[in-house]
Amino acid sequence: MSVTSIQRGRFITLEGGEGAGKTTLLRGLEAHLRSHGIDLVVTREPGGTEVGEAVRALVLDAANNALCAEAELLLMFASRAQHVRQVIEPALAAGRWVLCDRFTDASYAYQGGGRGQPVERIAELERWAAEGLRPDVTLLLDLPVSDGRARAAGRGEADRIEAEADAFFERVRDTYRSRAAHEPSRFRLLDATASKGEVLAQAVAGVSGLIAGSAR
Amino acid sequence: MSVTSIQRGRFITLEGGEGAGKTTLLRGLEAHLRSHGIDLVVTREPGGTEVGEAVRALVLDAANNALCAEAELLLMFASRAQHVRQVIEPALAAGRWVLCDRFTDASYAYQGGGRGQPVERIAELERWAAEGLRPDVTLLLDLPVSDGRARAAGRGEADRIEAEADAFFERVRDTYRSRAAHEPSRFRLLDATASKGEVLAQAVAGVSGLIAGSAR
Repeated sequence: MSVTSIQRGRFITLEGGEGAGKTTLLRGLEAHLRSHGIDLVVTREPGGTEVGEAVRALVLDAANNALCAEAELLLMFASRAQHVRQVIEPALAAGRWVLCDRFTDASYAYQGGGRGQPVERIAELERWAAEGLRPDVTLLLDLPVSDGRARAAGRGEADRIEAEADAFFERVRDTYRSRAAHEPSRFRLLDATASKGEVLAQAVAGVSGLIAGSAR
Repeated sequence: MSVTSIQRGRFITLEGGEGAGKTTLLRGLEAHLRSHGIDLVVTREPGGTEVGEAVRALVLDAANNALCAEAELLLMFASRAQHVRQVIEPALAAGRWVLCDRFTDASYAYQGGGRGQPVERIAELERWAAEGLRPDVTLLLDLPVSDGRARAAGRGEADRIEAEADAFFERVRDTYRSRAAHEPSRFRLLDATASKGEVLAQAVAGVSGLIAGSAR
């Protein structure tokens, strides 16, 4: 009888405000991990499944200005519950790595810090929906709000979240930084004012322990 | 200084399985209440708002067969959170009555009884999302599953919920009946095998106390 032992994959999330450079970093990091022979799933939240993309469209639709904070949060966790069960957990269980553009930390930052939903209310939904799944490493792209908004401004029409005022994004940033300070073993705080190459180098250093740990 | 005292409106929900005659009863009951001079909002779940109708489309889409029970339940409560805050509570506060085709009892019947989500998990979301709002009266159209499915069969293509097996709908019915037995002061169990006129008469009798109680 042959015994096959599959080592569980690693779960890496990217977080950060508008214009922080998540998309560029995601591509660079994906290429880096693949160059190490890592089998990788790249996904995003909200999104990643049929439900997730529908939720994304609803939440970002600038015309949907009646959407209340409670419904927004429940939609985000509906997307996440499906994403975890349909995409993320099966991949990790099969030994693949998952690189995800935003995860639960974004709910604390945007719906908590930004919209003022109490942390404990968000934690209740996290316990309800996410089955205790936590990223192995979270890369936080940190940037002054004014810098990020200046970069994002060139992208055309603002969506429903981007249309928020600066004070909203200051609270988002503060919440992200506070979470990073409270969980230093999971978070890597990256200086997103640096050049693209330098940010990628910081990210690569941030996940190097995972790569070393997964070598057989 | 003039003091205006608005009497809070009444909240009536209709529940029942497929083919039980909810739509017909809704129209008859609406006409009856309006004939008593009652200012009424008629709405439905999932639905009633932009988010609610999007959730309805997602949940009923027969092609969306990967949707997990947890995401389905979170979507239902996202729709409900928005519906309560945007439509139901403002109407009740303004003294209008609300007649709603399905509400929280349907989550217990379909996602609880039907899909096997634990009652306590659903109760957690109810406490989280619905701000303690409970119907004043819930009219439950009760019918053997085989009768209801025979009636519903003439309606064309089955949606994602209608495509479930008989055992699913037996559990839905059992859950509804059990809830009615545990809350006799809120529920009115209507015999949906009776004629349309007789069912309407049962419903009218079931809400007569509310109408008498609201007379000034």
